[in-house]
Amino acid sequence: MKELKVAYRIACGAQDIEARARALAVEQSIEMPPGAVGDERVRAEVLGAVDAIQPIEGGDFRVTLGLSVPSTGLEGGQLLNMLFGNSSLQPDVILEDFDLPTADAARFGGPAEGLVGLRRRLGVAAGALTCSALKPLGSSSRALADLAARLAAGGIDVIKDDHGLADQAFAPFAERVRAVQGALRREGLNAHYAPTLSGGPISIAAQRRILQDEGVEMALVAPMICGLGTLHELARSRSGLALIAHPAMGGAARIAPPALLGKLFRLCGADATIFPNHGGRFSYAPETCASLAAAARNPWHGLNACLPVPAGGMHPGRVAEMLDFYGGDVMLLIGGALLESPLGVERAARDFVEAVRGGGR
Amino acid sequence: MKELKVAYRIACGAQDIEARARALAVEQSIEMPPGAVGDERVRAEVLGAVDAIQPIEGGDFRVTLGLSVPSTGLEGGQLLNMLFGNSSLQPDVILEDFDLPTADAARFGGPAEGLVGLRRRLGVAAGALTCSALKPLGSSSRALADLAARLAAGGIDVIKDDHGLADQAFAPFAERVRAVQGALRREGLNAHYAPTLSGGPISIAAQRRILQDEGVEMALVAPMICGLGTLHELARSRSGLALIAHPAMGGAARIAPPALLGKLFRLCGADATIFPNHGGRFSYAPETCASLAAAARNPWHGLNACLPVPAGGMHPGRVAEMLDFYGGDVMLLIGGALLESPLGVERAARDFVEAVRGGGR
Repeated sequence: MKELKVAYRIACGAQDIEARARALAVEQSIEMPPGAVGDERVRAEVLGAVDAIQPIEGGDFRVTLGLSVPSTGLEGGQLLNMLFGNSSLQPDVILEDFDLPTADAARFGGPAEGLVGLRRRLGVAAGALTCSALKPLGSSSRALADLAARLAAGGIDVIKDDHGLADQAFAPFAERVRAVQGALRREGLNAHYAPTLSGGPISIAAQRRILQDEGVEMALVAPMICGLGTLHELARSRSGLALIAHPAMGGAARIAPPALLGKLFRLCGADATIFPNHGGRFSYAPETCASLAAAARNPWHGLNACLPVPAGGMHPGRVAEMLDFYGGDVMLLIGGALLESPLGVERAARDFVEAVRGGGR
Repeated sequence: MKELKVAYRIACGAQDIEARARALAVEQSIEMPPGAVGDERVRAEVLGAVDAIQPIEGGDFRVTLGLSVPSTGLEGGQLLNMLFGNSSLQPDVILEDFDLPTADAARFGGPAEGLVGLRRRLGVAAGALTCSALKPLGSSSRALADLAARLAAGGIDVIKDDHGLADQAFAPFAERVRAVQGALRREGLNAHYAPTLSGGPISIAAQRRILQDEGVEMALVAPMICGLGTLHELARSRSGLALIAHPAMGGAARIAPPALLGKLFRLCGADATIFPNHGGRFSYAPETCASLAAAARNPWHGLNACLPVPAGGMHPGRVAEMLDFYGGDVMLLIGGALLESPLGVERAARDFVEAVRGGGR
């Protein structure tokens, strides 16, 4: 019944932890005094249960709740709300992990394309994939299209918008998509373009139509900005778009990155998930990155695997090490380092692609 | 030019702060090595500028950046992305505040109805307003409609869905809205109903049509779950809905609550903003609540004022104190405490309303 299992880390003294855990179970379910619930069915089936309380290192506790799956409405945004909505406002709680029954995971659906579908679209059956980004924000559509052509000529598999490219006057979405996709097609280049979807429901619907008209088959989505429900609906509506999730606003501090960027984004349909690699501009530990990649692509309820995309200040000198770390079911994303190469973008891209194809040697 | 001013608190040693501040300015603008930017205009107009670095208490620094307003595309989600998207993944940074020129604030638009429009709709020209919530999650539409009727009979101004009510099988959105709105209309009650909008673009569009068909004029939106761009688009599209923002997933830890729940939600069109009052189930300090209320309703760029709605474990015994603290331009939201009153919901609601109308005395 209460088969949505959620693990939290709580900073709390031993004498208070039972009450704190019960309060958390109320907050994340019925959000009212249980004694005032008139309907016995609601208390029995919907009120969150404290399944376990375990002391962990540092004097904190791991509390596992059982929540009701029907409370999620089988919808991504509401799932996030049930997992951490109000509790995100309480500073003593970290969301560490969650799981749900296989049948319910299938109802959420996960990645429509996933790792395997992405490989098929890209025509790369094995080995690591490559990705780069159109930058900088502020460039004209034409400049971005030129850059896309050079990266594609270098052999990059996926060329994504920088996550800062939305629908600004510098390079409006419709104009940019036509320019970039046009440049790739005109030159017969194989790269796939993944533009950023942004804004509210009306904007995103309009952007989807533009992608369809232009034959674009991938998109970049930041679920913590445009809504996890938006990702989920795009995945479930068989939009034909392979969906790459971007971690912007994923705030490292209060939700464990493997749970958010790995499992939750995958469950809601991300075909690939970008995350900060260790040793770059961000601070994820190697173990966090390994757990995140595992959460994205290891077998889980029969959902399609989600392609891990480590990124964030990477450079070609790290290719061999990253392939050793992640293995071949990965897409390496290098942006700025290709753009600042003295060899020029196309050559830098080609060297990067060849390093990846050669296993980094 | 770079007139989007953003204040961050950074934990960093004095010897490194200048480099750290420059790195932050790059991360939140062009996100690539500035030296590799070929277009001088982009470096001059789009690359973030470090406007000020000041030491503050605790050995941290306050860094003020100047970012380019056009980078936001004048769109709520993208504004959030520019303020904190990638940096939210870096643990040493807290987003403390932001501001922008008055002309740009007008382009964002702020609340379409705001505090004054809400008062007009509710027919309450002065003094604090009252709000309660339909609970618990798991109830049938009929049970929620009965509860709404009792709260309305008690004189509550706004009856909102509990933020956990989305589109679940217990009480599906369409059925629930018809049941609740029907009950209020049938009994000629004055209360306004604010159902929760949830899900992705297609769902929200369908929910809007249902609200229109049923003559519902208010809605509850959790911008950090369904996307700040969704709130913004609802406000800008003249939907006719007064929009109440819910703080779920607002995560206290990394964005200052007055900046997020006060200013940012207001700028993007929240007519009212719910937040955890001090001394309840959450941990905001009284000063945080006062700053948040000020950010929501004090004059700011000529935007409509946004109505502060302190909540989260409040009870009628606190009415006088809360009115002293917030004054009359406030809506008090009490949920569970009315439901557990031994007097019954309607009487508890009436006592609450009378206490508020009487200034808490």
